[in-house]
Amino acid sequence: MALIVQKFGGTSVGNVERIQNVAKKVAQFVDEGHQVVVVLSAMSGETNRLTMMAKEMQTRPCKREMDVLLTTGEQVTIALLSMALQQKGYPAISYTGWQIPLTTDSSHSKARIEKIDGDKMLDQLGQGKVVVVAGFQGINIKGDITTLGRGGSDTTAVALAAALNADECQIYTDVDGVYTTDPRVVPEAKRLDMVTYDEMLELASLGAKVLQIRSVEFASKYKVPLRVLSSLKEGGGTLITTEDNFKDTEMEQPLISGIAFSRDEAKLMILGVPDKPGVAYQILGPISDANLEIDMIIQNQGIEGTTDFTFTMSRADAEMALEILQSTANHLGAREVTMDDTIVKISMVGVGMKSHAGIASTMFKTLADNEINIQMIGTTEIKISVVVEEGHLDLAVQSLHTAFELDK
Amino acid sequence: MALIVQKFGGTSVGNVERIQNVAKKVAQFVDEGHQVVVVLSAMSGETNRLTMMAKEMQTRPCKREMDVLLTTGEQVTIALLSMALQQKGYPAISYTGWQIPLTTDSSHSKARIEKIDGDKMLDQLGQGKVVVVAGFQGINIKGDITTLGRGGSDTTAVALAAALNADECQIYTDVDGVYTTDPRVVPEAKRLDMVTYDEMLELASLGAKVLQIRSVEFASKYKVPLRVLSSLKEGGGTLITTEDNFKDTEMEQPLISGIAFSRDEAKLMILGVPDKPGVAYQILGPISDANLEIDMIIQNQGIEGTTDFTFTMSRADAEMALEILQSTANHLGAREVTMDDTIVKISMVGVGMKSHAGIASTMFKTLADNEINIQMIGTTEIKISVVVEEGHLDLAVQSLHTAFELDK
Repeated sequence: MALIVQKFGGTSVGNVERIQNVAKKVAQFVDEGHQVVVVLSAMSGETNRLTMMAKEMQTRPCKREMDVLLTTGEQVTIALLSMALQQKGYPAISYTGWQIPLTTDSSHSKARIEKIDGDKMLDQLGQGKVVVVAGFQGINIKGDITTLGRGGSDTTAVALAAALNADECQIYTDVDGVYTTDPRVVPEAKRLDMVTYDEMLELASLGAKVLQIRSVEFASKYKVPLRVLSSLKEGGGTLITTEDNFKDTEMEQPLISGIAFSRDEAKLMILGVPDKPGVAYQILGPISDANLEIDMIIQNQGIEGTTDFTFTMSRADAEMALEILQSTANHLGAREVTMDDTIVKISMVGVGMKSHAGIASTMFKTLADNEINIQMIGTTEIKISVVVEEGHLDLAVQSLHTAFELDK
Repeated sequence: MALIVQKFGGTSVGNVERIQNVAKKVAQFVDEGHQVVVVLSAMSGETNRLTMMAKEMQTRPCKREMDVLLTTGEQVTIALLSMALQQKGYPAISYTGWQIPLTTDSSHSKARIEKIDGDKMLDQLGQGKVVVVAGFQGINIKGDITTLGRGGSDTTAVALAAALNADECQIYTDVDGVYTTDPRVVPEAKRLDMVTYDEMLELASLGAKVLQIRSVEFASKYKVPLRVLSSLKEGGGTLITTEDNFKDTEMEQPLISGIAFSRDEAKLMILGVPDKPGVAYQILGPISDANLEIDMIIQNQGIEGTTDFTFTMSRADAEMALEILQSTANHLGAREVTMDDTIVKISMVGVGMKSHAGIASTMFKTLADNEINIQMIGTTEIKISVVVEEGHLDLAVQSLHTAFELDK
């Protein structure tokens, strides 16, 4: 017997029939002798419907009231699923965030979890009940309703799993796991049985949008085994866990787990900056002050005592960053500022690469063989990222996928 | 400056525009210098929509979960109205039932209010805010969400007014007050400026369905001045208050305040029952055990040591009562059981009649002059009810309305 936390998203509870399907899925696990805590999102579309009404009421809706409004979404689904389970003969009880209570800080619309009281849930589980909890929501110290922000239900599920010391946290989505890369680009992409938290963080942040980054961080911090599964298809999905668990299995750790990529990239360059200490801060400070996030940063020696900076960021922010950068350039007496929003980033991810120096050279050779020019390179312990011209994306990902035998 | 509790029903908050209208109405009172607590229902139709979903989930939806589900309705409207008020420049804050907290017993779907903590509300009012409270809902000692039952928002409003020692509780509806009788039957019917709690209770229970009986009882118990107004039309509506307040005004207390009637009546008779002590209980007990409510009861001496019982009840229950009565009749050896569901009840209501014996005779003479046969008569301190054949309803009400000069 295990204690399992299962999270179902908005699509999985999008109408009466789908909620009944979730009840069926939960019932399977109860029949196998497990204790189950279910975390639900609002019905798909509901959050948008409520947000539309709020915007008709107030130009910039009050965040406290917005949280009061939006949390009704999960309150509806938890009541309905509890009824559906009871109808099938499985005792069930629902809890909103404040009923748990799941205590957060006071940042309405993006609150952080501070404390979860597991007593009520454990008591109900002990009585043989399925506990159905509203995701995404909590309560602050003043007794106000808070929300964790979009996708916060994943975080709720992982946090509950940590608080209850659950054996596994299962996230049901519309895909059946994490793939070696996007199957729309490489039809031969394979589902990964297991991946480490660190790999998942790199894969998630780079575009394989299966899980909220925050929930993976949370799972990693509290060592909660996290499994991504399909709510429609049967199958074991992908288990996200610690590196140690790989060692426990007979499986050989692959060098590369997957290839992530992002089409939403722009490259900005500021050239011929007089090279003085503190110049990097003078350039990047104003951009960061404008709340624009920078991804890769490269600094090169320029000509005659000057230096060149290149960095990447989201395309949506690039125009605004360009303006800031031009004003900085005038101020510092830099030669030139350019922007290119026709680039993409491709990243090879794998904990195995730590001990294998050959990964980078194989990657660069593969791209060279396909006449793909590399514009920028960045590395971390478990990732190598390259920036290439956007027209090369599909060919680059496909050839790398083959070169690293990810389709085997 | 006064403290006013205003309640708006589902129709008044049925869509975005109507909620904005409510905001406008509330703003008027704030502009006049009043402190305002607003109590809202769910948008009209919402409760039915949620109930439909629940019934698809569970044949007999769990009452605890039903309360979790239905209370989302007001949680949506309080958030939206708070936003609408803020948009107009009026600081506002919403509270659900559990946030107040409004504590109830544990009878899900028909809970009774036990305690209201006014501190939060008074604190916010003191800060110059409009306080917007979800009607219909509360929390029990276990921390479960409860509801007060249909129309419970009126009760919430009155209870809040009592707890806050408010100067007035205003109930906004789609009519502009309480009338001397139904204007669809008597176009000359007049709006009453003032009526006592007792009169209102008789008028409400007899078909002038403006207010929930329970909220009037509550108002009467705590002496909360209650005003019924239209949310669309301007006007002072009808003030429901104590008899003392009539004396304080220059107004002469009218003999009769209004004429109520009910078309939903059936008459059952059990004739020739052997007259023994306890026979009334033997006849009415099984009907009451079946949760059928009886209204008027008359017992007459029958022939040869027997007795006859006549009583009235709701038409919907009459068939079932007839079956029970027939079995009782066999058991007791009664002669005959009959049922007539073509009758109506007409009631003259007025605190003034206590001291005027002539009311009854004027009533009976008026009906006789119009050749209307009276089948049953019942009286209380402030009411005389008669049962007549349903075809006579309009003529009876019209002629009584004229005879007692209610259209003056």
